[in-house]
Amino acid sequence: MRYFEDLEAGAVYELGTVEVDEDEVIDFATRFDPQPFHIDPVAAAESHFGGIVASGWHTCAMFMRLFVDNFTKDTASMGSPGMEELRWLAPVRPGDRLTATFEIVSTRPSASKPDRGLVASQWKMTNQDGVVVMTLRGTGIYARRPT
Amino acid sequence: MRYFEDLEAGAVYELGTVEVDEDEVIDFATRFDPQPFHIDPVAAAESHFGGIVASGWHTCAMFMRLFVDNFTKDTASMGSPGMEELRWLAPVRPGDRLTATFEIVSTRPSASKPDRGLVASQWKMTNQDGVVVMTLRGTGIYARRPT
Repeated sequence: MRYFEDLEAGAVYELGTVEVDEDEVIDFATRFDPQPFHIDPVAAAESHFGGIVASGWHTCAMFMRLFVDNFTKDTASMGSPGMEELRWLAPVRPGDRLTATFEIVSTRPSASKPDRGLVASQWKMTNQDGVVVMTLRGTGIYARRPT
Repeated sequence: MRYFEDLEAGAVYELGTVEVDEDEVIDFATRFDPQPFHIDPVAAAESHFGGIVASGWHTCAMFMRLFVDNFTKDTASMGSPGMEELRWLAPVRPGDRLTATFEIVSTRPSASKPDRGLVASQWKMTNQDGVVVMTLRGTGIYARRPT
């Protein structure tokens, strides 16, 4: 188990790859983001996207799963107060293979709660063609090592 | 159908209410954010949250559904380049009733693409106790009215 004290600015983590599944793209958007270019192949083909694209929130969620599986699950994560500068830079399409990286930018102990610290990070997701499809700056809360 | 020209700074839209469903909280997080405080009632009860809480990405997705149903679907929406200052301010728990509002902060035509414009907005989600659980600043792209 890694605690706040074990997380160091400058560390870069490769979080692996997810293949974008068309059924999941449509299922996610049907429930949460039912715009035609996410759920209707005919309307999507006629849109400026030229075909079905994933909801940006689905892309965030796919990143999160890689982040939990390959980083967070071995840490004393306590959640997140929020995110900055979320950018959806290029369309995410069914069949894309998205690779995620996570870099720790800075860390600081909480000013108000001595049991935890804050970790600022840069998230990046790149497709199979090397195109960066999403970036954001994250903040995570991690428990300090018990004394 | 409302186009970019129909969207005015200062307009506030009430997007309605969603009740947070425990099965959906666990299903969403099992797929996308499988941290113990999202998916495991026993571990969640022992955590600083004191019980199951929704993934922040799920909260974004629930907001998005209200936004599409009650605003976007009648507009010439072309997607979004990103979001700013996403804040998860208070835990979201199964059974909560979340009410969403959307305010247009400013609008401007695209500098590079004459067929569209950008709309900056403030999103807010409040629970049944009047506690603001999430805010963010959004940017949306909307087609200009065909001439």
